Amino acid sequence: DQAETKGNLKIVSDDGNFSASLGGRIHFDTYLFDSDQVNAISTTEFRRARITLKGDIYDWSYILEQDFAGGSTLDGFRDVYLAHKFLDGEVRIGQFKPFRSMAEMTSSNELTMLERPFSSATGLYDGNQFQQGIGWTGVLDCFTLGMMAFNLRDAGTPRNEGLGAAGRLAWHPVNTDHETLHLGTSISYENANQNSSDLMAEADYAGRRGPSQLMALTPGDLGGDASTAALELAGSYGPLYLQAEYTVGGFEGNYYLTEEDFEDEFGAPAPFPCDPEFGCFIGDQTIHTWYVQGSWMLTGEHKPYSQKRGAFSSAKPSGDGLWGGAWELTFRYDTMENRDFDHLQANSTTVGLNFYANRNVRFMLNYIIGDDDFTGDGTDQLGFRAQIGW
Amino acid sequence: DQAETKGNLKIVSDDGNFSASLGGRIHFDTYLFDSDQVNAISTTEFRRARITLKGDIYDWSYILEQDFAGGSTLDGFRDVYLAHKFLDGEVRIGQFKPFRSMAEMTSSNELTMLERPFSSATGLYDGNQFQQGIGWTGVLDCFTLGMMAFNLRDAGTPRNEGLGAAGRLAWHPVNTDHETLHLGTSISYENANQNSSDLMAEADYAGRRGPSQLMALTPGDLGGDASTAALELAGSYGPLYLQAEYTVGGFEGNYYLTEEDFEDEFGAPAPFPCDPEFGCFIGDQTIHTWYVQGSWMLTGEHKPYSQKRGAFSSAKPSGDGLWGGAWELTFRYDTMENRDFDHLQANSTTVGLNFYANRNVRFMLNYIIGDDDFTGDGTDQLGFRAQIGW
Amino acid sequence: DQAETKGNLKIVSDDGNFSASLGGRIHFDTYLFDSDQVNAISTTEFRRARITLKGDIYDWSYILEQDFAGGSTLDGFRDVYLAHKFLDGEVRIGQFKPFRSMAEMTSSNELTMLERPFSSATGLYDGNQFQQGIGWTGVLDCFTLGMMAFNLRDAGTPRNEGLGAAGRLAWHPVNTDHETLHLGTSISYENANQNSSDLMAEADYAGRRGPSQLMALTPGDLGGDASTAALELAGSYGPLYLQAEYTVGGFEGNYYLTEEDFEDEFGAPAPFPCDPEFGCFIGDQTIHTWYVQGSWMLTGEHKPYSQKRGAFSSAKPSGDGLWGGAWELTFRYDTMENRDFDHLQANSTTVGLNFYANRNVRFMLNYIIGDDDFTGDGTDQLGFRAQIGW
Repeated sequence: DQAETKGNLKIVSDDGNFSASLGGRIHFDTYLFDSDQVNAISTTEFRRARITLKGDIYDWSYILEQDFAGGSTLDGFRDVYLAHKFLDGEVRIGQFKPFRSMAEMTSSNELTMLERPFSSATGLYDGNQFQQGIGWTGVLDCFTLGMMAFNLRDAGTPRNEGLGAAGRLAWHPVNTDHETLHLGTSISYENANQNSSDLMAEADYAGRRGPSQLMALTPGDLGGDASTAALELAGSYGPLYLQAEYTVGGFEGNYYLTEEDFEDEFGAPAPFPCDPEFGCFIGDQTIHTWYVQGSWMLTGEHKPYSQKRGAFSSAKPSGDGLWGGAWELTFRYDTMENRDFDHLQANSTTVGLNFYANRNVRFMLNYIIGDDDFTGDGTDQLGFRAQIGW
Repeated sequence: DQAETKGNLKIVSDDGNFSASLGGRIHFDTYLFDSDQVNAISTTEFRRARITLKGDIYDWSYILEQDFAGGSTLDGFRDVYLAHKFLDGEVRIGQFKPFRSMAEMTSSNELTMLERPFSSATGLYDGNQFQQGIGWTGVLDCFTLGMMAFNLRDAGTPRNEGLGAAGRLAWHPVNTDHETLHLGTSISYENANQNSSDLMAEADYAGRRGPSQLMALTPGDLGGDASTAALELAGSYGPLYLQAEYTVGGFEGNYYLTEEDFEDEFGAPAPFPCDPEFGCFIGDQTIHTWYVQGSWMLTGEHKPYSQKRGAFSSAKPSGDGLWGGAWELTFRYDTMENRDFDHLQANSTTVGLNFYANRNVRFMLNYIIGDDDFTGDGTDQLGFRAQIGW
Repeated sequence: DQAETKGNLKIVSDDGNFSASLGGRIHFDTYLFDSDQVNAISTTEFRRARITLKGDIYDWSYILEQDFAGGSTLDGFRDVYLAHKFLDGEVRIGQFKPFRSMAEMTSSNELTMLERPFSSATGLYDGNQFQQGIGWTGVLDCFTLGMMAFNLRDAGTPRNEGLGAAGRLAWHPVNTDHETLHLGTSISYENANQNSSDLMAEADYAGRRGPSQLMALTPGDLGGDASTAALELAGSYGPLYLQAEYTVGGFEGNYYLTEEDFEDEFGAPAPFPCDPEFGCFIGDQTIHTWYVQGSWMLTGEHKPYSQKRGAFSSAKPSGDGLWGGAWELTFRYDTMENRDFDHLQANSTTVGLNFYANRNVRFMLNYIIGDDDFTGDGTDQLGFRAQIGW
């Protein structure tokens, strides 16, 4: 059988019926905070340190991915599923990402900025990036489809009877080597049930490990639900790239918090009068979040589009730039708002510079200006990443 | 050197002195409960998600297996040992299974039902599936032997001074491509000591993650001991297979529990009068457990017998069945009883259907009717597994 | 591409631009204590159970090493970094060992005794074996250099703003197949800051999992610092080998402990009068530690010297000894002292015997005579290791 390496281990059987590979990635970060009201601790950290086993066995396949940066091996589960070829795509069973948010569909190896925007599991689907269930994804002509029905858990969250479903449709009417136009939409529905964790939206408005603003909360054990609908618009033209997403989310409420608990959870006193006996009433909460991000490849490369993911990948360095790599200027404006609570809004403005040493190695620098309207906090972060994937 | 894959990664040196492989398995389960007295939570769960490194170095070998479904990496240790060829077998040092119970010796990839019966570490040797020590196993003519002396711990349990030993002898007077007859016996002795965990027998009578009935308890730190003796009878004939095991266990007692503690531990009030001052006296406890399980390969395949393990493996699909795979009807009756306490008995009756897509991929469906005489609980479970091994 | 194995998996691309390998190691220990004042629990234990992924991608490389004996995957991080060739060496970014102490630079696969002496992270740099940061190491002529600037943490310790730096210079004026002379020096500086863990020196004077004597303590959150300077002298001549290190360390103090806390931390009452109001004053603490260790290869082999590490490796068995392997007699005297506290001194005297079955497999036996002057404890340990590395 044939052995191959591009930094990984791969073997393909001569008859083509079997293949297996072992890859991985290391993302090593440094965060320096300019703290305001909240005391954020500057530090270094492994953002990701993963091994990825993949294989094909006739028309079945598996992926078993573990992130050692997860702490426990259960928290470290990423894509872990078996799949079967079906209708120009594959049926998956196990743990994988529900199909929602273009930002979420982008591989962590291919991010433009250090972190994904609020419309992903970084914010709106806080902590629910991976779920366990069954789904199908495939590419039909110039459409990328994905749908999943899931139990409301990943390997690291408690066993529970919550259920959800999500689906996404992406359309790329234009997709050449020089330019791409992408339109997309996704919906998600999650119904908490016995032993479910809380459904929450949070805004980490000053980058990872900085302060976090709770935006909406549906208690896990009361049987409430949360749903979202999103629109995506993105495109690339030569060395330029632009991507925007707008998402509306509804979080079921109808419960009371004591004034102390409200302040603990939301970081500031309730901006409305609370009942002296029952406490602060939390009704249904509507979340609006959107972002615009873009980049300019200073060295002229073009960001390719992955039809399989329905999302952009990173440009391959042409090797003509300074130090033989590619250079990219990046920016993003990201905002999230709960219109049911006065001033419950957080924004992030980020500018960045990426250096791609080769297809596997890159360095990223972000300056994030955070702004929390609810607490008045204005923490900033300078973030740096050294990354290798193989 | 030669690279090979059947879904795994394997390299064998040209001189045959070295070889190494990286395999793994994913078992993804769904449990739906029909609860009775106890509120069992229906859920999905990774039953196993393992990587397995194996290698040969001259006449030495190693195996390093980690189950990411274990939670902590210490709880994830499975077979982890080095071995040396010796007398038609191998001497092992490290962590592996004590040689006791035919069900235990069956690989988790080759189980007929979702879970092993009570006579294994699922019940009688609760939580003591793997132990650390030294042992030898080998095949002599039509006998499979195994013996191990061990410290009473695996990597995930506390350091302690408990010691144990177990041995097993299996005989297959008939073993052809069409029929096999198997007889076996095993004994085990465990002596708790300083810092040892409790020695317990438990009956998970409604499947995994369902209710659990404590059957016997020897406190770990008091220096008590537990011992078992087992008889095995099994056979296959064409597409039919039958396996039965009978085990008697003795758990040393001679301690008192308060009435509250008794009810906490055993799930119901003590069925005998307790001393008002000292509490409920627990003397020596005798456990009887046996099961009968069998299956019929609807598509006609034959279950092979592994001489090395002294246990049955799964049939290889001939490819002629519905959806190109093999189909198997299965059943089991499993019971465990502590005759020293009135009504302390639990039973499981299971029927199931297995579909083997190919040698690596299978799906299992079990309906388990649980019955706990002691508490009167009658929880049932519908369990489903998607499995791939490579 | 080319597949290779010596018990590991390795693939090298035909053009030499890429390579990848998967190795590992299992170290399985048994500790038997002859306890004195402290009740040490005899036990078996996996000292190490690691997988190691390495790869080269053009002039970049990575290493991702996880020790499953760590408990959590964060505690299991060992060498995890990306590196770039630079000036006859490599620049590293990520997690690796600060360059200090010859004993620390010795691979755990190549240790002469079961554990490293006090002058390493086993004692003087307690718990700070790996740190996160950036550094360079290389070989220039007959000099081995290494320097690192780091955040005061590894993946398993809390995020904090502590910083440190360490550097080492080793010189081998003589290095032939028959004899080696080594001189070396290293310095280290660590400055605790917000959220840093305590900086501590400890003496595990009766081997691993035995009693531990705290030797010096700089609280982590008060911004104190710790610094060390070390001298190394080592050499080999035919089958003989000798290695010695002397280190002075300064731990900043200037804080008070209550009398109870002092006894809890140091294991005995304060040997000086404490203030009735503030408690026991801990000023700056000066640590002296040194060891001498050596060995005689009974079967005549010679211990090679690794220029890259600036440290000795293990002899390769010639195959002529008893059972076809190599045999080695070993000894060490190790001592650590805090001269600011009366009688705060601990010593270890170890004799040992190693058997090398082949290049990958070895067995080690140590008898350790422990002596704690501060508490008067004299626990001894008999330790045994079965080891395989690939």
